[in-house]
Amino acid sequence: MSKFKLAAIAALYAVVALSASTRARPSGPSWAASAPDPKLIEDLVYANRILSDQGVVDAFGHVSARDDKDANRFLLARSVAPALVTTGDILEFDRNGEPIDARGRGVYLERFIHAAIYRARPDVMAIVHSHSPAVIPFGVTGTILRPIYHMSAFLGAGAPVFEIRDAAGTTNMLIIDNKLGDALAKSLGDRAVVLMRGHGSVAVGDSIQQVVHRAIYTEVNARLQAEAAKLGPINFLTPEEAVKADAQTDSKGSLARPWELWKARVGKIE
Amino acid sequence: MSKFKLAAIAALYAVVALSASTRARPSGPSWAASAPDPKLIEDLVYANRILSDQGVVDAFGHVSARDDKDANRFLLARSVAPALVTTGDILEFDRNGEPIDARGRGVYLERFIHAAIYRARPDVMAIVHSHSPAVIPFGVTGTILRPIYHMSAFLGAGAPVFEIRDAAGTTNMLIIDNKLGDALAKSLGDRAVVLMRGHGSVAVGDSIQQVVHRAIYTEVNARLQAEAAKLGPINFLTPEEAVKADAQTDSKGSLARPWELWKARVGKIE
Amino acid sequence: MSKFKLAAIAALYAVVALSASTRARPSGPSWAASAPDPKLIEDLVYANRILSDQGVVDAFGHVSARDDKDANRFLLARSVAPALVTTGDILEFDRNGEPIDARGRGVYLERFIHAAIYRARPDVMAIVHSHSPAVIPFGVTGTILRPIYHMSAFLGAGAPVFEIRDAAGTTNMLIIDNKLGDALAKSLGDRAVVLMRGHGSVAVGDSIQQVVHRAIYTEVNARLQAEAAKLGPINFLTPEEAVKADAQTDSKGSLARPWELWKARVGKIE
Amino acid sequence: MSKFKLAAIAALYAVVALSASTRARPSGPSWAASAPDPKLIEDLVYANRILSDQGVVDAFGHVSARDDKDANRFLLARSVAPALVTTGDILEFDRNGEPIDARGRGVYLERFIHAAIYRARPDVMAIVHSHSPAVIPFGVTGTILRPIYHMSAFLGAGAPVFEIRDAAGTTNMLIIDNKLGDALAKSLGDRAVVLMRGHGSVAVGDSIQQVVHRAIYTEVNARLQAEAAKLGPINFLTPEEAVKADAQTDSKGSLARPWELWKARVGKIE
Repeated sequence: MSKFKLAAIAALYAVVALSASTRARPSGPSWAASAPDPKLIEDLVYANRILSDQGVVDAFGHVSARDDKDANRFLLARSVAPALVTTGDILEFDRNGEPIDARGRGVYLERFIHAAIYRARPDVMAIVHSHSPAVIPFGVTGTILRPIYHMSAFLGAGAPVFEIRDAAGTTNMLIIDNKLGDALAKSLGDRAVVLMRGHGSVAVGDSIQQVVHRAIYTEVNARLQAEAAKLGPINFLTPEEAVKADAQTDSKGSLARPWELWKARVGKIE
Repeated sequence: MSKFKLAAIAALYAVVALSASTRARPSGPSWAASAPDPKLIEDLVYANRILSDQGVVDAFGHVSARDDKDANRFLLARSVAPALVTTGDILEFDRNGEPIDARGRGVYLERFIHAAIYRARPDVMAIVHSHSPAVIPFGVTGTILRPIYHMSAFLGAGAPVFEIRDAAGTTNMLIIDNKLGDALAKSLGDRAVVLMRGHGSVAVGDSIQQVVHRAIYTEVNARLQAEAAKLGPINFLTPEEAVKADAQTDSKGSLARPWELWKARVGKIE
Repeated sequence: MSKFKLAAIAALYAVVALSASTRARPSGPSWAASAPDPKLIEDLVYANRILSDQGVVDAFGHVSARDDKDANRFLLARSVAPALVTTGDILEFDRNGEPIDARGRGVYLERFIHAAIYRARPDVMAIVHSHSPAVIPFGVTGTILRPIYHMSAFLGAGAPVFEIRDAAGTTNMLIIDNKLGDALAKSLGDRAVVLMRGHGSVAVGDSIQQVVHRAIYTEVNARLQAEAAKLGPINFLTPEEAVKADAQTDSKGSLARPWELWKARVGKIE
Repeated sequence: MSKFKLAAIAALYAVVALSASTRARPSGPSWAASAPDPKLIEDLVYANRILSDQGVVDAFGHVSARDDKDANRFLLARSVAPALVTTGDILEFDRNGEPIDARGRGVYLERFIHAAIYRARPDVMAIVHSHSPAVIPFGVTGTILRPIYHMSAFLGAGAPVFEIRDAAGTTNMLIIDNKLGDALAKSLGDRAVVLMRGHGSVAVGDSIQQVVHRAIYTEVNARLQAEAAKLGPINFLTPEEAVKADAQTDSKGSLARPWELWKARVGKIE
């Protein structure tokens, strides 16, 4: 029921937001002529709801998508819990992480995570940052997160860990500017996932569907690996098996099946 | 609520699928004169929903039943998440895992798991393949999954583990042909459950009710055994106790009680 | 939603059962002149639903109450999953565990657990038998279940473990007759809880409210103790602290508060 | 659904309580001229529901707020499970923990926890006492609860543990008078959280929103730290990082985001 209730509340927020926005800017749409594909925005809203429903994000964490019409821009919600995000909450940001037009809304402090990675990785089309719970222990203990089964083959030879102390000494642990964002992007390198010590993790992908899949199965893999570690030494996928398995589980068809289920679980967005 | 919502969505899918199918093939039923018992198909749809509700499958995993009218054929859903399976999604496959009439639907890549086991085990009438989470650690650590209590007595002297490297070297970890299916069936032997290293597990049974029971309690046993292993050496059921307990917990009456509850939890199918 | 749905289904079952029962025995009530207090039966139905909602029982496990009008009899549901129990499912049993009038219904195989304990313990007014999951590991590893906090002070100096091998050698693990029931009652002694190796546990109390509280917090204590054991040696409540804490948490007022919440969660019974 | 159902039931309780209260005291409001801000009472009711929804409290545990009109008084519900608390259940207490006007309602036995801390800590405006499950093991094993990530930076250099044996020898483990309350407040000192051996924990804050955040993330931190401890030595936030991170995550903006989500999840109060 809480799903329906949250959806109803989100719908209400959307109406209020729309009417507020209509009052404030009566004379035109908020997007330029080359506005992003509405389907991209819809998928981004679904991604927010799905990541909440699947336990990857709570009130914190965020997911973005590169603008399909302008590779120098990306889409990200205003500062709000992902479970409550609606279409009207999606804002556009430039390559430095600054909102094109915030429309008076608050923005996420850590938007520089997204900006820096889009700058460094032209192949990346979508990014998830979260504090997904099972992953946190791997960021603080030196145990490498590696693929325990084919579903998380994208972890390859293991996820690197970003140590903010190396980049900036004693901090508040957050990525609050482009310098820290660049340091994080460097730790990520050409991989799919990077952990952040004492903070969380980031997954990247070539589509919203792929990055959502990766964020969810990074969390599942962490849970399974922690359990297995208590039973004995783990026989992980070899890097070669990981490459082959990833090519399969990551195909369009394989990504479509869970996406349909996850969407069905969160209900129709407004 | 998500149960009702998923049911509603599944119903909608069913209507759409039916009308699509009616349009495409207006002139007759999809089954031959000796069509499988509709009750068998209904139970198979319930099995899909139940395995999702009980956390054995997520968007992946599948359950099949041998055709009660033709022992050389088996029933399995088209490629879709088990929680969304409806009657109209059930397809028939031949002994080599090829669909009799796919009606344009995508089919599961790993249908050869089912085909190979039905060929090797005439006693098997239903099969579940899953990545059920608590079982994964047992497939990768060498810790044998054994019956910790009477409810999982079908595990007998312990579940074997299938190592795909022994069968085919470096692979994508999946059972994508009959050769790999045969190797898996050989690992299973005459047992109820086989684990698959870095992948998942397979349970078999002499009915849909039995295999669902086994798939669920394989997962529960894995969870309990992992917890117990942290406390100290485990006093498992002896193989002799397992035989006696299995004879009881596996009786028709004992299987009917949970089946009624599990059906009640997922709601009426359409 | 599944709560409401289960309630609706249970209501339906109740109507069907009632009409079936009316048809079968049109000429009178099923209870003697000195029938048990309807409030006792209502509480017993709530206890069934609550134990399911709180994860103590799944499709298996049962709860009974001594008849308030005849101390030689007890009340227990017919063989059905506790979540689906309705008023019409409650049957009466004699001191040997035989149903007074089964009205054609199946009865639980392990009703002798209840019969034997009511015979041995005149102070006991209600009994829960379950396979509650966190308790299972304590029955098979030799780790004593002890009170980690005041809420489970009724565990006193620790729960004993019943080893069925000592009583009857190789068995199917179940308490299927009075001889096994007596052996179990002897292991329980004058305590509140006894574990059963490779099977489950039994809690007893002087009221339905008390035994439900004990069954739930036995499970919670097991979960907490297992977690704590991984961190280091545990500073348990001393037996003296346990006596004092139990006197408080077990008072009528303290039992009423959770009972109201647990009832509210399962909804009105029919 | 259980959320809506609980809300409906709570609403019913509220109506009954109101009408009962109207009948009993027809001639006026229950508050003095300088009654607390209704918004404070509303937030306190939300805090009760949220702490239940987030798994911090079950039928036990309580949350209070200092009266905004009289610093010598505080607001706390009558003795009822937090999930069922309504506006009509909020009572006022004096600095010694005695109800100003109990209106015939039962009061929490451990209200002295609140009274003593409000006396000792003028900066504290709200207090949560709970048996939140993941925290219990830290109170009984000597493992210090420390901030594993920025979200629980308020744990600083680690949470102290209150040992009631040191204060009063063998007890029933509860804080049932002001002497025990003072001893607990002394253990808390100037920190945000204190654990209670064999019992639970207390979190304090400068607002209801802050203390709810702290109670929830104390539980989350305990869960994550326990998991991490099994993987290896933990690289905690340094005390300096904790100070910096706490300043950020504890800002008004950062507290507002989860509060909106948590409120949305429990639905509108009555």
